[in-house]
Formats: sequence, structure tokens, C-alpha cells
Amino acid sequence: MKFEVTILGNNSAFPAYGRFPTSQVVNHDDHLFMIDCGEGTQVRLSKFRIKRSRIDHIFISHLHGDHVYGLPGLLNSYAHTGREKPMHIYGPKGIRMLIDTVLRLSASIVSYDIVYTELDHTDRVKVFEGSSLRVYAFPMKHRVPTYGYLFEERKEKVNVSKEAIEFYGLSVDQIRAIKAGSQTLRLDGEEISVESLLTRRPRRSYAFCSDTVYDPGLVKWIKGVDLLYHEATFMHDLEHKAEFSKHTTALQAGMIARLAEVEKLIIGHFSSRYKDVAPLVEEARESFPEVEAAEEGMIFSIG
Amino acid sequence: MKFEVTILGNNSAFPAYGRFPTSQVVNHDDHLFMIDCGEGTQVRLSKFRIKRSRIDHIFISHLHGDHVYGLPGLLNSYAHTGREKPMHIYGPKGIRMLIDTVLRLSASIVSYDIVYTELDHTDRVKVFEGSSLRVYAFPMKHRVPTYGYLFEERKEKVNVSKEAIEFYGLSVDQIRAIKAGSQTLRLDGEEISVESLLTRRPRRSYAFCSDTVYDPGLVKWIKGVDLLYHEATFMHDLEHKAEFSKHTTALQAGMIARLAEVEKLIIGHFSSRYKDVAPLVEEARESFPEVEAAEEGMIFSIG
Repeated sequence: MKFEVTILGNNSAFPAYGRFPTSQVVNHDDHLFMIDCGEGTQVRLSKFRIKRSRIDHIFISHLHGDHVYGLPGLLNSYAHTGREKPMHIYGPKGIRMLIDTVLRLSASIVSYDIVYTELDHTDRVKVFEGSSLRVYAFPMKHRVPTYGYLFEERKEKVNVSKEAIEFYGLSVDQIRAIKAGSQTLRLDGEEISVESLLTRRPRRSYAFCSDTVYDPGLVKWIKGVDLLYHEATFMHDLEHKAEFSKHTTALQAGMIARLAEVEKLIIGHFSSRYKDVAPLVEEARESFPEVEAAEEGMIFSIG
Repeated sequence: MKFEVTILGNNSAFPAYGRFPTSQVVNHDDHLFMIDCGEGTQVRLSKFRIKRSRIDHIFISHLHGDHVYGLPGLLNSYAHTGREKPMHIYGPKGIRMLIDTVLRLSASIVSYDIVYTELDHTDRVKVFEGSSLRVYAFPMKHRVPTYGYLFEERKEKVNVSKEAIEFYGLSVDQIRAIKAGSQTLRLDGEEISVESLLTRRPRRSYAFCSDTVYDPGLVKWIKGVDLLYHEATFMHDLEHKAEFSKHTTALQAGMIARLAEVEKLIIGHFSSRYKDVAPLVEEARESFPEVEAAEEGMIFSIG
């Protein structure tokens, strides 16, 4: 089952060096979920050939322009192309007024319902539950109310192991019985538990954390995820700037990844002062080895 | 003295085929004036190396998203780069609330004053007067309140003709005296009027008309301009669609140019149904010979 994230934008504040403000699309089993929507996101959806009609849920981290100014244009384009199914938008309190005001004053005739979930929480909260995926929002520490999002598969993936099928010469009917939930199986005249015949793949998870000051307090909400996106706006020599503007340094992003015992870290939301982001990756690796920079168009598989 | 317009975007509704929503920059003697600001305009300012710090006036035709959704991001970027001088924004009533609401909810710390001129006029009105240029707004007929803009040089350019300087062997002092306003000059013992020694270049003008239904009523406001930009959203076989959505066909844009006796017409605001815009130019030429399509990055000299 596909579970991957495509980076549409990775820069902070404003576009620079061909890097655009934040947006990502999570693809889980061909259901698409957008995270943040900086200006020009709809152009990059086209560029990277992402089927925008499959996006039904948009999660906004916070209302700073570089995370949300592309949303009115995207919603407007959906209307122009006759969308009918509802769009669900999640974000901090105020998201509804921002979007409603812009769409009303620009006389947009929106052909579909926009369903808002406004967040005003101090703990982790489940905001979406589908048949195979859950999404949680959790508060981060930035200059304005800001939320991270955790995408977690609902169930373990359980299969009969290939080795067991070969070893016991299991029939199609037997495999079907196991998948249907049989706890035991009669093999060579003996009743055996099916548990030993199964492979269990743990549920996979992805966490998005941008923007936030360095905050070990959020580790509890993202513990053990397969893939963590964490902002790394500055190099650590500008820690005072990071602290002041409530952002994280690359070194600190690596520390969060280490504390949370994640499989892999991707960093982004780079300050426009950095033309080359390789030194940020190097620095993050001082704290945590498995780091990559999020670059526009990159696709990261999860788990 | 430079007087030219750079096309930053020319498409209607939403981005398609590498065409972006409406925006233009008028350069008059290195003072820059922006007209409309569709989503992503700031990226194209960088792409076409336009000195954004020289823009002090932004004229918005109407509040439909494809003409205004790039404005919050641009204003935000000015703040990030420490702009201090005021920005003047002109547009239909509502522009202030739209921008103020977005900037407030996105917690933008704007480091400079934004001075709004909200239009609610039924006749042509002067909205800007500089030392060498005037800008007028005039109402157009669209689905929402919409204004066109006329950029007109204030004065004729008066010079002493090269031929007269050579023929009479005029001294620097004599030329200075004429430029300072002397009406007569003593030449070979004879008092002559300076009028015959002068070249007068007529004042130059540019008119921007988008979006509007075909409306000969606006001709009186743009009569005789050197360069006219007029929308041509549809081919004439879709005249009913143009009429219904309050847009103009290419044939009709040519008719407006002919009625207004302009020097040259550029058409834009093309519907996304047209991948190739050459047929729209061909059609406009049936009504008026001097037509070009506005394409991103093109620069049109005026006069």
C-alpha cells in the first residue's frame, strides 16, 4: 500500500533560489492529503502531475503567509473546474475567517462545501479517521498558534508468510481461512496456532513539524515515527535568531529526531540566507545520521 | 524617457500552459507601477529581474482572485525585506478589507504604511499625479466593480530641433534661453519666434482594460492612446459565453481598438481553453491590424 510524501515547497518566508514556500502532499493508498499551501502551490501541483481532484483534506500548520497564501487560489481553481465533493480544511482558529473573507470579497462562487475544523487544543487530538489512516494534530511552539500533524496507519498489515506457505504447502483455502481470522489450522493431523505463520508489518507513520522553536516537549507525540519532517530554518550559529523567531536549527532538528527515535529525518523550511542547503544537512547529521533535505519534487516513501 | 510595460501574467481564471494570472509593470522613467497582482506575481518579478523596490503604486482592476491573490504575499515579502516607504494601493471598494484581514490573520508585521485609495466612481477619475505622469481610473463593465487604468504623460516633450541648431548655429546660451521659455530669439539681427525651432513630441499614453464585457462606452476614456491592453478571453464563436461572463472576444477587442483609434493593441487574459493564442490574435486583426498577444516576459514600448 502506497504511503509517501511529495515536497512541493520547502522555503521559509518567501520564494528564493527556486525554492517555494511550504506545501506537501501525503499519498496514502492513492488518497491525497495536503499539508500547508504556500503561494503558488497549485502551479507545483501541476508541475509534479499530482491529481488535485484526489485531495479532499488540507491540513494547515499555522496562518503565516508562507504556509497559507496559496489556499484561496487553489480553492478558487477547484470551483472553476466544477468540483462538487466537499473539501475539509484543518487549521488554527482564524483559518475559516481568512478563507471566507477572501473568497467573499473576491466574489468566488464556490461550487462545493468547505468543511472547517478549527484547532484550539493544547494536547494531541485526532482530526481525521479514514478506513486505513488516522491523522492527529498536536500543538507546537511558534509565534502564533501552530500545529504539527501525525499521519498514522490504523492497522498492522498482517500476511501469511511466504516461508510458511512453502514449508507447509498451504492450500489457497487454508490461506483464505487464516486471512478470514482462523486462529488455528489442522496441519499433518495436528492443530497448530496460525500466529507463527504470520508476518506482521508495523503500522507506518509520518509526522510533520513546521514551524516550531526547539521543543523536546513534542517528542512524546511523534515517538518512533518512520519519517519525520522537521523545520531547520537556521544553522546552529544563529541559534539566538532561531530562539527569537521561534524556529529550530539544523542541529536541534537532528536532536528531536534522535530523542523521538524516528527512522529518518527530512529537514526543510530553510531561511533564504542559505543558497546551498547541504551544510544544514551536514549539521543535522551531527545529532542524527539519517537526514535528507526536502527539495521540491522529491518523493519520500514511508516505512 | 522610458515608458514601457512588462507582462508578468496574461491568463484568465487559473494558471495554464505556463501562463499565469494577470499582472503587469509599467516603467515610466524608472518609476515602476504595478497593475494587478495574480498569485505568484512576486516570483515573476524575480524571474524578469524587475526591481521591486521601485514599485510604490499598485493598481488593482477588481477583486477576482486571478487579479489580486498575489498581493498579500508580495506585501508580506516587502515587510520581510524591511521596506520602509509607503505602498499606495488603488482598487475597488473592499480591497482594504481583503488585504487588512489577510495580513492581520496571518500576523504579518508590516514595516511600512499601506495607503489605500478605494474606488467607487462612475466616471473617469484621476488617482495619481506625479511630476511627469498621471494615472486615471475608469469604470468597466464586469460581474463585479472593475476599473481600467490610463497612464498618461503630463507634458509634451519640447526640444530645440537638431536641424535648427545646425542651420542657425545656435549657441549653448541660446538653446538654454529657449528651454527656459524665451518666446523669441535674435538671429542675424532679426527677431524670430522660437516656435519654428522646436520639436514637440506628443504626450504618450497607455490604457489597461481587463476584465470587461464588450463596451464601446469606455472608448471615450481611452481615445487615441498609443498602446491599449484589452482583454480577449474568448474567440468570437463563444460570444454568448463572453456576454454571459462579462468578457470580451478577440474580434470585439479589435473593434474597441479601432473605435478608440489607438496606435497598437495587445490582447491578453486568455481562457485556459486556448493552448495556442495565435488564432485570437488573427481574429482581433480582422477588426484592427496592429495586434500582438501579451506573453509573460514581453516588454512593450509606448509611443
